[in-house]
Amino acid sequence: MATEADAETETPDTYERFEAHVERMNYVGDAAGVLQWDQQVMMPDEGTPARAKQTSALSTLSHELLTDDDLTEWLDELEGTDLDAEQEAVVREVRRQHDRAVKVPGDLVQRISETTSNALPVWEQAKADDDFDAFADTLRELVQLKREYAEAIDPDRDPYEVLFEEYEPYLGLDTAEKALENLREHLVPLIDDIKASDVTLADPFEGAYSEDTQEELVRSALDYLGYDWDRGRLDTAPHPFSSGTQFDARVTTRFSPDDPLDALSSTIHEFGHATYTLGLPDEAYGTPLGESRDLSVHESQSRLWENHVGRSLPFWEGFSPTVDEHLGVSASPQAFYEAANTVHPENLIRVEADELTYHMHVVLRFEIERDLIHGDIDVEEIPQVWNDKMDEYLGVRPDTDADGCLQDIHWTHGSFGYFPTYSLGSVLAAQLFATAEDDLGSLDDPIREGEFDDLHEWLTDNIHSHGARYRTDDLIREATGESFTADYFLDYADEKYRNLYDC
Amino acid sequence: MATEADAETETPDTYERFEAHVERMNYVGDAAGVLQWDQQVMMPDEGTPARAKQTSALSTLSHELLTDDDLTEWLDELEGTDLDAEQEAVVREVRRQHDRAVKVPGDLVQRISETTSNALPVWEQAKADDDFDAFADTLRELVQLKREYAEAIDPDRDPYEVLFEEYEPYLGLDTAEKALENLREHLVPLIDDIKASDVTLADPFEGAYSEDTQEELVRSALDYLGYDWDRGRLDTAPHPFSSGTQFDARVTTRFSPDDPLDALSSTIHEFGHATYTLGLPDEAYGTPLGESRDLSVHESQSRLWENHVGRSLPFWEGFSPTVDEHLGVSASPQAFYEAANTVHPENLIRVEADELTYHMHVVLRFEIERDLIHGDIDVEEIPQVWNDKMDEYLGVRPDTDADGCLQDIHWTHGSFGYFPTYSLGSVLAAQLFATAEDDLGSLDDPIREGEFDDLHEWLTDNIHSHGARYRTDDLIREATGESFTADYFLDYADEKYRNLYDC
Repeated sequence: MATEADAETETPDTYERFEAHVERMNYVGDAAGVLQWDQQVMMPDEGTPARAKQTSALSTLSHELLTDDDLTEWLDELEGTDLDAEQEAVVREVRRQHDRAVKVPGDLVQRISETTSNALPVWEQAKADDDFDAFADTLRELVQLKREYAEAIDPDRDPYEVLFEEYEPYLGLDTAEKALENLREHLVPLIDDIKASDVTLADPFEGAYSEDTQEELVRSALDYLGYDWDRGRLDTAPHPFSSGTQFDARVTTRFSPDDPLDALSSTIHEFGHATYTLGLPDEAYGTPLGESRDLSVHESQSRLWENHVGRSLPFWEGFSPTVDEHLGVSASPQAFYEAANTVHPENLIRVEADELTYHMHVVLRFEIERDLIHGDIDVEEIPQVWNDKMDEYLGVRPDTDADGCLQDIHWTHGSFGYFPTYSLGSVLAAQLFATAEDDLGSLDDPIREGEFDDLHEWLTDNIHSHGARYRTDDLIREATGESFTADYFLDYADEKYRNLYDC
Repeated sequence: MATEADAETETPDTYERFEAHVERMNYVGDAAGVLQWDQQVMMPDEGTPARAKQTSALSTLSHELLTDDDLTEWLDELEGTDLDAEQEAVVREVRRQHDRAVKVPGDLVQRISETTSNALPVWEQAKADDDFDAFADTLRELVQLKREYAEAIDPDRDPYEVLFEEYEPYLGLDTAEKALENLREHLVPLIDDIKASDVTLADPFEGAYSEDTQEELVRSALDYLGYDWDRGRLDTAPHPFSSGTQFDARVTTRFSPDDPLDALSSTIHEFGHATYTLGLPDEAYGTPLGESRDLSVHESQSRLWENHVGRSLPFWEGFSPTVDEHLGVSASPQAFYEAANTVHPENLIRVEADELTYHMHVVLRFEIERDLIHGDIDVEEIPQVWNDKMDEYLGVRPDTDADGCLQDIHWTHGSFGYFPTYSLGSVLAAQLFATAEDDLGSLDDPIREGEFDDLHEWLTDNIHSHGARYRTDDLIREATGESFTADYFLDYADEKYRNLYDC
């Protein structure tokens, strides 16, 4: 048996080799991220064949590094060793990724990769033709493959739970389900009351606004919110996203001529994601301590800035002169505030939904994908179930499947369990924002004055700087003193929208 | 011993595994190329620490793939097997890279990498301070390390030759040396005659031209020459370069307000590099058959377009209206032609040199670096030797080392043997252009009319489409029916410049 002195000499060695391996794996992953950013933002049209080869080579190398036998040995050894809390967190995170990767047979990974690649054009065509049947067989195959995938990881647990943990490993599916039920129960009647209200909110925008002026507007918004241009940039992309590292966290947006608020809120949303990335500790770059927690927490950061800052009255009190300056739209802060918060229950498309009805789109998808994976409904039933739920939750029925169950790309990617994280993030945003105001006092004045240092610091101290050191549930408890809860969001939604719609 | 039937079953297997490995190595290398493009063109200022880690991880992976034991075995086996000509070429190219990589000890690679990294700020400071002594020790160390490097690869050969072959493996140092001597012997008297001429060439440009109008101009030039925008893009970079693959070959340029011809010629130069890349066969992407031959051939493509097309009178006969359109400069084609071909023997800076004096800058560097590697001169003698040679070849003496021996970054990178390829490329450009005109007839009309399909096709058929299938010397013989020769360039230079300067 090793003496303590021996253990001290031995441990750092193994840990250091383990850490260097993990860093290398993450550097390769981040290199792939640069290639993906380039592909969506810069790459010329015909660059795809070469880019696909490059990305696939990096992805194979990452997978080999993650499933490496050395890594298995180091993990086994380190789990029996005295480590400090940070080292333990790194080992925990790598162990989770490693175990999921080694448990799934290579040929299943291969089949999923091929099926999702082939599914993309099938889905695109089916959507263009409004022909769900043309996509049904492919979707059935994807459901089956992802069931096998879940079973490979853990045959003894609910397969949907296993899939959900790919995107949100530590919050617990039961917690997520309860939160989504809570949203459905509270928001359906609130939306009904809004529909019944005879209040009409203001809309000061009319006509078309050029891309150049809209770009000036959203750049001013990023200045207003405190984006670090030395570590970031803004570009356009067909589907806005943000990506990068704590040294270089980029934002993309898109412009539609008649809807400058869409570009603005989408830019602020991606800014929120980027601030999370930028708040990760520089010195931990390459290990889980320098990486973000998973999708719910990431979405909480984007939604906090998009909704609790960018859709607040104080924001418009401070920012409305800038809209006048760039777009020549002169209106009261209240008018802009109303325009940014108009509820559209008749909207059929998730990505165009307002802050409130958005959650009903998510709840519907969650219920359908869970039942699909459980085998409680079959693929051919989806259009009927989808339309019935739209009717039940929002009082509107899609005329076409293109505007209904064919609208999202997620299932085509084989991503079952992803949708809930959108709503969980919004819910968490409200909980965090309430705690920040408890700690810092009302943020109305700072938001109105464009003074965000305190809020950035609070978020960095309580969320960003921890990287993936804590599990999601522990991180929320550390930051707020409570477990994850939808209460803050429901209170916020109730107060804001009953006030706006006088209902 | 295997029967022929056995050999047939066995060979494809080994070759296929070998080929997949080589492709993977090249995909990783090209991924690193995307990261480097991004770093120089798009990356925000503070992105460097993360990017350095990502690039270094990819470079280590590439090195491991290149020195892999499996690759050694496959090469040994394949060299004893009946392969077709294309397969043999792939094996030849990979063998050369593999052997060079495995012969250099890892710790020497590491020391060179560290020393060049550390040398960069030392060189920058020494240049800023015009203090050669502050750089001398570092340069001495780099010379010593690259001598060791050459010795590791082949202790029995001239170390400068071994280093030169890093950039131009197949033309032969003796051939290169003869060409450079030839240039010195013919161009020094020609330049003397030009200096003595009392002809003053026209310069229709005056004042400053905005970056936007200059960008319009160079984009029009790329349209005129037939750049494939579906497989490329134009951006700005502090040091223009081109990079990419046959699916995505990008060009960069830079603008100085008072010198639109600099942006134009630099853009056409990089366009020439990009057309080579774009002419490589799509289906061979990932193997040497889909990669360009080395630096001399690459430079021949950039110089052919820059000089033989872009600095020709027919080009200005066709393109001068476009200059008027974008910059509002109205002058005769002859005036633009003269401005684009003015010789400046008094210029001290290589990258600002004209088509003719450029070669004296290269000859000088070649002679100095060869003597340094041979130990025939010591580092502290460089400033004196440099200035004496400038005096001898161009009749001008730098006042400072910043404008003399400290001006180039190459030695700081440890690149000894690189400079000659610049002149070899120009010389080869003249030889290829002359052969193209032999085959196609005079290109004056097509150049004047912006009809470049035939020239593109000729270059693709004779150079680009072969990738690295042929050795450089064989490629030149295949394309021109002759060995590499400086005669065409010297004739071209004599005729063009004696005519322009009436001397």
